[in-house]
Amino acid sequence: MVKFSEEAKSLHASDIREILKVTENPEIISFAGGLPAPELFPIDEMMKVDVEILKKEGRQAVQYSTTEGYVPLRKQIAKRMKTSFHTDCTYEDIIITAGSQQGLSLLGQLFLNEGDIVLVESPTYMGATTAFAVNFPQFVEVETDDKGMVPEALEAAIEKYGDRVRLMYVIPEFQNPTGITWPLERRQAIMDIMNKHDIPIIEDDPYGELRYEGETMPTLKSLDTQGNVIFLGSFSKIFMPGLRIGWMVAAHDILEKAVMLKQTVDLQTSSFAQRQASYYIDMYDLDAHVKQIRDLYGKRRTLMYDSMKKYFPEGVSFTYPEGGLFTWVTLPEGLDAKAMMPEVIEKKVAYVPGGAFYPNGGNANHFRLNYSNMPEDRIVEGIKRLAEVLKEKIGK
Amino acid sequence: MVKFSEEAKSLHASDIREILKVTENPEIISFAGGLPAPELFPIDEMMKVDVEILKKEGRQAVQYSTTEGYVPLRKQIAKRMKTSFHTDCTYEDIIITAGSQQGLSLLGQLFLNEGDIVLVESPTYMGATTAFAVNFPQFVEVETDDKGMVPEALEAAIEKYGDRVRLMYVIPEFQNPTGITWPLERRQAIMDIMNKHDIPIIEDDPYGELRYEGETMPTLKSLDTQGNVIFLGSFSKIFMPGLRIGWMVAAHDILEKAVMLKQTVDLQTSSFAQRQASYYIDMYDLDAHVKQIRDLYGKRRTLMYDSMKKYFPEGVSFTYPEGGLFTWVTLPEGLDAKAMMPEVIEKKVAYVPGGAFYPNGGNANHFRLNYSNMPEDRIVEGIKRLAEVLKEKIGK
Ligand SMILES: Cc1ncc(COP(=O)(O)O)c(C=O)c1O
Ligand SMILES: Cc1ncc(COP(=O)(O)O)c(C=O)c1O
Repeated sequence: MVKFSEEAKSLHASDIREILKVTENPEIISFAGGLPAPELFPIDEMMKVDVEILKKEGRQAVQYSTTEGYVPLRKQIAKRMKTSFHTDCTYEDIIITAGSQQGLSLLGQLFLNEGDIVLVESPTYMGATTAFAVNFPQFVEVETDDKGMVPEALEAAIEKYGDRVRLMYVIPEFQNPTGITWPLERRQAIMDIMNKHDIPIIEDDPYGELRYEGETMPTLKSLDTQGNVIFLGSFSKIFMPGLRIGWMVAAHDILEKAVMLKQTVDLQTSSFAQRQASYYIDMYDLDAHVKQIRDLYGKRRTLMYDSMKKYFPEGVSFTYPEGGLFTWVTLPEGLDAKAMMPEVIEKKVAYVPGGAFYPNGGNANHFRLNYSNMPEDRIVEGIKRLAEVLKEKIGK
Repeated sequence: MVKFSEEAKSLHASDIREILKVTENPEIISFAGGLPAPELFPIDEMMKVDVEILKKEGRQAVQYSTTEGYVPLRKQIAKRMKTSFHTDCTYEDIIITAGSQQGLSLLGQLFLNEGDIVLVESPTYMGATTAFAVNFPQFVEVETDDKGMVPEALEAAIEKYGDRVRLMYVIPEFQNPTGITWPLERRQAIMDIMNKHDIPIIEDDPYGELRYEGETMPTLKSLDTQGNVIFLGSFSKIFMPGLRIGWMVAAHDILEKAVMLKQTVDLQTSSFAQRQASYYIDMYDLDAHVKQIRDLYGKRRTLMYDSMKKYFPEGVSFTYPEGGLFTWVTLPEGLDAKAMMPEVIEKKVAYVPGGAFYPNGGNANHFRLNYSNMPEDRIVEGIKRLAEVLKEKIGK
């Protein structure tokens, strides 16, 4: 038996992977994953895009290239950072990553030594905490309410742990898993605290452009006076996740380290995939495409919310997300969403139990629902089936 | 100033990155990089491939998918492992990586704790040692001769360091940087030693199919009786590096860890890029394409070798590679190939100084030359220019 590293020993198959395997069965109405609606992918347009790339710069499009990424795409992103995210930057403030997941992985390695503290929302995206976990940090979960991270709780955590706090990770827009968005005053309050400390802040924002109602908010990055906010963006939810294209906006000293690390990790992100995003933006109207996505997901969000209101028993609460892909369901204390999975799967429906989103465990009485990936009739049917299980559990 | 991790502090801009930046100037005859010849990329075929992918399975081709990789591609690779590498395996023994570079990065994390020893050929591929270095191992360079790693030296190293040896990394075919290939007896002798120990062995083989003369050798993987060899393959040199597609063949317990780690690192390799390789293999003749590459590079190899014989002064020696992309030049002791770079660049030619390929430093009297990326006339001209610098240095 070969001997693995401590890091390897810390890796365990996640419950979610197991659940997602079950949901590959097309009979199952799955609210478990976080997949975009495939029917909106601009497939016909991509045929033209790909041919154009190969005609115009075929050889460079498949050759090795720089680790930082394709300059025209970085310039297009800089422009979108202004128009979609109200954040000023130039292409030199941006590097391309293999999805925002790679950004999370690189940043965990760049900032965390064993035992260092990373502050996260409670709950938070479990893909981030598993990416950070290979560095053996301590996760300190900061209390959240229906407006996001609670400033007093953040202040108390920084006070308590002092210099051991080496990173903060947050998703202020349409959070995964809760769907909650931080209002402006909350963002300002959090940044007022953070601007007094030299703690890097990862602002993970893959859903920012998918707002179905209400006003666009300034990013933390745009409220950052110290150059400590690292913004992660992604084409996964506004274009195509399978291409694996994301980006990182950060101060130059951080980008420089990220580039050196990325070079050891995969040399570069696919030259061709970067051009697929870039040429699509040039040849078509990404904003119009995003509007289509917003229209469809907004409708599904409303339908899921209304169905839960109609069918879920009393005692079960859920969020009303203004955007993004997820809503978050809270069961009466004592119920265990993971333990309920066999019954739920029996009814051919699936969610992700909420416990996985708390890096320090507990909180079994939640689950996450995705509404982007199922057609309308299945959303209603799936919620009805879930309601049946919940009614049995709650006993009415 | 934000505080970086120890790992981040250990990252430094490499000399080679700086050299490669200089060589972006098209006036420079660059033997520095390791780029495939762009004129052989099957660009027209790729237009048909891309359209076919989008027609046949457009939505899945751009959607999130499994971390392990696209099953049809893994099956095609299993077949090529048999036909091109004489190695038996099934698709379940294979996962897809973002180039073999990602394989190196994942494996370093899976096997190396701080202070652990990794055995490498002296010299070795510097992209591997920088990927491993983030785990703070100790590199023990094992002596090589013109037949690769010296078995007695390997045995002595294992004897000396015992249990601290946690990984061996080798490139038995057309090594980067030396171009040297281990003959059969050498492979057998090394595997006889290794089969007695439970040490994972990375067999990095991106050049195995690019043999210009002589007989195909069995891989270490095929001589492995313990399941300890991890074979890394790549489409970078036989197809297109910019797509970032490689593969790992290993025992299931190792693959399982690699998949869990890869999921935290980038979720998966591009769904579309994997299909680009797979559909190309289905629709065209990859073996015929590889033969074209072999023919061209073989010619360039011979031309570079003959030019060095003709123009380089006495006292300078160089390898005669039977395949791959590189030849390795050794200068008289006391000469410093890195210190010579300004004069070399002045003559508008470039190489990679050899020191970078020795993780523990020293050995300044070598440089690496690439012959795949320059047309014939520039190869001859570049060698002439190098010869001028060398003659000045050696003083005749
Ligand atoms: C909050 C958050 N961050 C990052 C990611 C990773 O996405 P990608 O790597 O596809 O950009 C996801 C994916 O669901 C996510 O929800
Ligand atoms: C020996 C060796 N291994 C691995 C790599 C990485 O190649 P890729 O990630 O493109 O497969 C290279 C690239 O030059 C190499 O020479």
